[in-house]
Amino acid sequence: MAQRTVAIIGLGLIGGSLARDLAARGARVLGYDRDQESVRLALDSGAVHAALDAALTGIAEAEWLILAVPVSEAAEILGAIASASEHLTLITDVGSTKRGTADAARQLGLAQFVGSHPMAGCHRSGWGASRPGLFEDATVFLCADTDTRAEAVDHARVLWESLGATPTLCSAEEHDEHVAWVSHLAHFASFALALAIQARGKRYSDLGRGGRDAVRLAASSPAMWRAIGMENAAEISRAISALERELQGLRSALERDDGDGLEERFARSATWCDPQSS
Amino acid sequence: MAQRTVAIIGLGLIGGSLARDLAARGARVLGYDRDQESVRLALDSGAVHAALDAALTGIAEAEWLILAVPVSEAAEILGAIASASEHLTLITDVGSTKRGTADAARQLGLAQFVGSHPMAGCHRSGWGASRPGLFEDATVFLCADTDTRAEAVDHARVLWESLGATPTLCSAEEHDEHVAWVSHLAHFASFALALAIQARGKRYSDLGRGGRDAVRLAASSPAMWRAIGMENAAEISRAISALERELQGLRSALERDDGDGLEERFARSATWCDPQSS
Repeated sequence: MAQRTVAIIGLGLIGGSLARDLAARGARVLGYDRDQESVRLALDSGAVHAALDAALTGIAEAEWLILAVPVSEAAEILGAIASASEHLTLITDVGSTKRGTADAARQLGLAQFVGSHPMAGCHRSGWGASRPGLFEDATVFLCADTDTRAEAVDHARVLWESLGATPTLCSAEEHDEHVAWVSHLAHFASFALALAIQARGKRYSDLGRGGRDAVRLAASSPAMWRAIGMENAAEISRAISALERELQGLRSALERDDGDGLEERFARSATWCDPQSS
Repeated sequence: MAQRTVAIIGLGLIGGSLARDLAARGARVLGYDRDQESVRLALDSGAVHAALDAALTGIAEAEWLILAVPVSEAAEILGAIASASEHLTLITDVGSTKRGTADAARQLGLAQFVGSHPMAGCHRSGWGASRPGLFEDATVFLCADTDTRAEAVDHARVLWESLGATPTLCSAEEHDEHVAWVSHLAHFASFALALAIQARGKRYSDLGRGGRDAVRLAASSPAMWRAIGMENAAEISRAISALERELQGLRSALERDDGDGLEERFARSATWCDPQSS
């Protein structure tokens, strides 16, 4: 990583953590965030060596460009930098949905674009939530298509492997279906759970430890999850429908006084959650 | 607590943790568990000083009796010991529902029965999950009615306060409504979430950190949650219906491409989850 210059747009949880890890491995990190305070803190910490201006003209010095912004903003930034991107050997993002940004990159002819999605997010956001080592042992989905330069995929692998993550290649379509179920659904379930408890007039402080675990994701960034929801609406909607059906099944067992049916469902669920069995 | 003799029936997460804390505070602890291995481990650890036989005749030596068994089993044990309970100044349980056991105690004329529910459970169960200090800073609901001896309520307060918990007095009916929303619903939501993800063919190991938090409670004991579900079916069913409505609201916003509606719901949820605001 030493001697490599990497530009990072967005210095929140993911972008900030990338900056910290890349700087620690000897890269020169150029950083931009709409929030000037985040930029200042990132410069002070040494994770970012130089700030980029809003026009991003400084990316001319970079070999790699990483977009760490809400998925709804990535396409616009790609459009803005496309004409000045020939020298970039890798352009990637870190969004939780991959189809929209991949489509935008394809239309702009950015063959060095590889979508990345590190499974390392949590309910916290912003520079204050960033930390070294966030990506260690995390799965990172890499999404490329037939137009993507093989060299760019190699760069993306080097990037994530250097941070201790495990890259997994798939198409943007496969990715978006998969994460709707293994990530997005849990967020929507937590949001809905928090809303239902709140609507009953209960307070967050009424919850025990288990309840707090279950609603933890409901503290996630509303703007970020709006963007993810809009981008992956069809798949998430299917997943929510399936969750509604499971809830109806549990409720129906309760209403029929069907203890066996209830326990069978709980046992299936508990077995699946046992890391030994999966 | 020194010199006091306490009998604990059930040496799982809650009963085992009670034994550890009470023994550490000088009480003489008599213990029973159907699982002989748990009894042996509890004796070896010093948390239990003497084992009770299955007929529980040894409770003649105790002043306090604590039932730490699934809620479906508490009434039967109360029936079995009722005729030999005059000397007990406190009989309590630790179940997550309170109406059924309170009704049984009332019918048996056990005026020294006070229902307890420490909000200290988690998805783990059994003696192996027990630990010292489990009840520190936990809310403990104490349920008494007009037949309950005031002295028994005082004993229950002394018991839980000595372990660092905060007792809150309420009726069994108030309790069961409250916990359906602040505890039971989160468990049913986690079970349903795990079932939905599993039914799609995804593995537990596909989840990121946030998803694992959201399904953590789905690893809870199936037998224990069957009993809780059966005991509190009507309230839990109402709560599940409310959760289904919130999910439908989110899904409908996705399907209508209503980003504002989605973000408004997320913001309401995130604000509620902020400990600063509750």
